[in-house]
Amino acid sequence: MNIYFACSITGGREFEATYQEIVAALRADGHQIPTSHLVQSDVMENEREILPQEVYDRDVNWIKNCDVLIAEVSVPSHGVGYEIGFALNIGKPVLCLHQKDRRVSKMITGNSNPMLSTKAYGNVKEAISQAQYFLTTC
Amino acid sequence: MNIYFACSITGGREFEATYQEIVAALRADGHQIPTSHLVQSDVMENEREILPQEVYDRDVNWIKNCDVLIAEVSVPSHGVGYEIGFALNIGKPVLCLHQKDRRVSKMITGNSNPMLSTKAYGNVKEAISQAQYFLTTC
Repeated sequence: MNIYFACSITGGREFEATYQEIVAALRADGHQIPTSHLVQSDVMENEREILPQEVYDRDVNWIKNCDVLIAEVSVPSHGVGYEIGFALNIGKPVLCLHQKDRRVSKMITGNSNPMLSTKAYGNVKEAISQAQYFLTTC
Repeated sequence: MNIYFACSITGGREFEATYQEIVAALRADGHQIPTSHLVQSDVMENEREILPQEVYDRDVNWIKNCDVLIAEVSVPSHGVGYEIGFALNIGKPVLCLHQKDRRVSKMITGNSNPMLSTKAYGNVKEAISQAQYFLTTC
């Protein structure tokens, strides 16, 4: 499948290692992830060289062309919140994953859109299993 | 005007005093702000007593019924990012205000939707002036 993986960039990179492990596991399963470079440690430097409007247009086009969006939402992010809404609005299935001790916005946990699933995980292995299971249901 | 004021709740309350001053100034100008209780210091306790789905449905209805959405985006927030996208999608004018030293997601700064304006402010007085000016253009 073509998966848009959404994660915090400007909002903070505290969960970067988790993003990397989830993306690596899904790519190893044979999925395509156009945003896979966004989980790398040099993302801020690389993205700085591109105009903000180019980043926006690129990301929105990737959402339009993806089969599903998987967001890691442990770290707050305006961009990820926007992307979740954008994907739901055009009918894409969305999975939000977060570390179980993290509080998540009620605009996500209270959203009854049937295309949206939210799962708390204890460790990254569990997060990967939840993502893999989600993909079998889409 | 009926203004949906969007600010970080779960994402962090570092800018709470700024939220309060902006909302107080706009209310003093005679505007209605259904979300004005969300800028108060006891918001987390009060919102905890309401089911997440009730919060979501209430907030989405407020966005549908507002004239404009004004978001303070200095502190990352999934909810605010979602709300900005939701408002733009139904054709509402949106102003994003942020403290000038804060980095803001390219999903906001790179978004060329003509209904979206983004302004950096040096102090809260300037933020209020930017909000007041924005309201004269809507």
